[in-house]
Amino acid sequence: MKKFIGRVDNLVHDSAQGLVLAHQDMLALSVDPLFVHRRHPKQGRVAIVSGGGSGHEPLHVGYVGTGMLDAACPGQVFTAPHPDQIVAAARHVDAGQGVILIVKNYPGDRLNFDMASEMLPVEHAIVLVDDDVAVDHSTHATGRRGIAGTVIVEKMVGAAAEAGASLTQCQAIGQRVNACTASMGVAFSSCVVPDAAAKTFEIGPGEMEIGVGIHGEPGRYRRNVMPAEDIVSLLLDSILKDLSLTAAREVLLHVNGFGGTAQIELHLLNKLATLALAERGLQVKRWLVGNNTTSLEMAGASLTVTALDDELTSLWDAQVVTPTLRW
Amino acid sequence: MKKFIGRVDNLVHDSAQGLVLAHQDMLALSVDPLFVHRRHPKQGRVAIVSGGGSGHEPLHVGYVGTGMLDAACPGQVFTAPHPDQIVAAARHVDAGQGVILIVKNYPGDRLNFDMASEMLPVEHAIVLVDDDVAVDHSTHATGRRGIAGTVIVEKMVGAAAEAGASLTQCQAIGQRVNACTASMGVAFSSCVVPDAAAKTFEIGPGEMEIGVGIHGEPGRYRRNVMPAEDIVSLLLDSILKDLSLTAAREVLLHVNGFGGTAQIELHLLNKLATLALAERGLQVKRWLVGNNTTSLEMAGASLTVTALDDELTSLWDAQVVTPTLRW
Repeated sequence: MKKFIGRVDNLVHDSAQGLVLAHQDMLALSVDPLFVHRRHPKQGRVAIVSGGGSGHEPLHVGYVGTGMLDAACPGQVFTAPHPDQIVAAARHVDAGQGVILIVKNYPGDRLNFDMASEMLPVEHAIVLVDDDVAVDHSTHATGRRGIAGTVIVEKMVGAAAEAGASLTQCQAIGQRVNACTASMGVAFSSCVVPDAAAKTFEIGPGEMEIGVGIHGEPGRYRRNVMPAEDIVSLLLDSILKDLSLTAAREVLLHVNGFGGTAQIELHLLNKLATLALAERGLQVKRWLVGNNTTSLEMAGASLTVTALDDELTSLWDAQVVTPTLRW
Repeated sequence: MKKFIGRVDNLVHDSAQGLVLAHQDMLALSVDPLFVHRRHPKQGRVAIVSGGGSGHEPLHVGYVGTGMLDAACPGQVFTAPHPDQIVAAARHVDAGQGVILIVKNYPGDRLNFDMASEMLPVEHAIVLVDDDVAVDHSTHATGRRGIAGTVIVEKMVGAAAEAGASLTQCQAIGQRVNACTASMGVAFSSCVVPDAAAKTFEIGPGEMEIGVGIHGEPGRYRRNVMPAEDIVSLLLDSILKDLSLTAAREVLLHVNGFGGTAQIELHLLNKLATLALAERGLQVKRWLVGNNTTSLEMAGASLTVTALDDELTSLWDAQVVTPTLRW
């Protein structure tokens, strides 16, 4: 296995420390239990906590900061965070107005966030993200999986909280963003989980996995690699069928790299997807292109479409100051 | 070859269009000759133009914007931009105070920027970047190569220009930053150049290339993969020997991923390198961690150290609004 791994393998803790060192103007660290939180606590507002398995960075730790998360709890690679982390993070950031817990729809994450919820002595509400339209059930999930659309949910709920929305309003915003967000991806290669030291799956030299999950778990089917235009059409057809948008709607387009695909290819996908949406009568008004929700070093990408209205557009445009998103 | 490639292969143009679509609030595109430039031209200031082969994104196109580049000229993958692109970009962004051309030290780039310089009817000066301490000559370069330190030079020269420095002052800043910046990297895997459709080099399952260049060209030697602490020591020893820093100096540390290494590993490297510098009596005051100068999807990373003084620190801290750096 060729990775940067320390002599004593403590990757998740060491990496969180490295992140916080580089962004100590805005971030601080709790080492035990492990969570990353804002250096300057939010006052008198609903707090937002998320978390999940490591290996998807910058999700979630790279989205802590003004206008987005108050804290993020990284589990071991592809493993849900412990309930103790979630409880400690939520208690730490609660500013008296309650806490929103944003959870990707995987059994391990749901179980541990539910356990945390039962133990948590502060008012809170859960927002579940399940934007992946590829499969209803997979090796990793019951029901639809939460993938790259999580970033859109975290951004918009974070903006609502920053603007003073109540706990109930923040939860409603999160549920609404999740409902009007749909994603699907393809993978060209597998990732290697450090502890496993072996590829998560095998894939032939000319094949791609369509509808892959962000842990490299199977999607819908395999097919030979196609021209980028055809991949974009295939993904958008599934996404738009799910969203059932009427004509002339405005959308946010998120092109997300899984970690091992060059940025030059992601921007090619962005051009092709923007044009393909226009051909389908949808105007892209906002864009996010980058490695925002990764599967370690897996090669591939997903497309995410969020239907916009004035409220969601202004939540997207609101100020955000995190290590990853900043405007 | 598994990559996102359009039916008609026009990757460099299409990708530039995708980038500009996603950032149309700050960027605009010239299609023929191809260059990316600021949507809102700078007035009465020195303009900064850079460029080089594609495949290193976000370098250079992702650094166009307030406080950094005025324009960037992407060549084909790993191929210098044509002199016509450079001349057109420099003429377009010149605001009457002259143009700085920032060039990485590769023969193709130097030749084409020199040809552009001869044709360019506006006042201008060249800043050459050669921060890679690994080798004095390589298959790709005569003299030291320009690698991840280029981003530091572009940021600081851009800040000087934005603050009203003259052409001569901007050139002097650029030369000074280059002189006090040193870099070196290691690769675990090769990249695949789209047109070549084959790996640039072969490397054994347990090996790493130490001192690799950003085109996957050979470095100093190969060795079996070591713990991350030992890789960091090996790189920093060469970097600090080159910089000849006296004790107690303050530095900027840039951990740069080559594209195919997970962000969780880059932040581990950041922690280890920050500690290793402290053990050597150097205090890291500023950090940049990310895939900032890539070699397509090559796995590996480089470390860059810049000796800071008050002037360089304030140039680093100055406002920057580009697709990639933003503060």
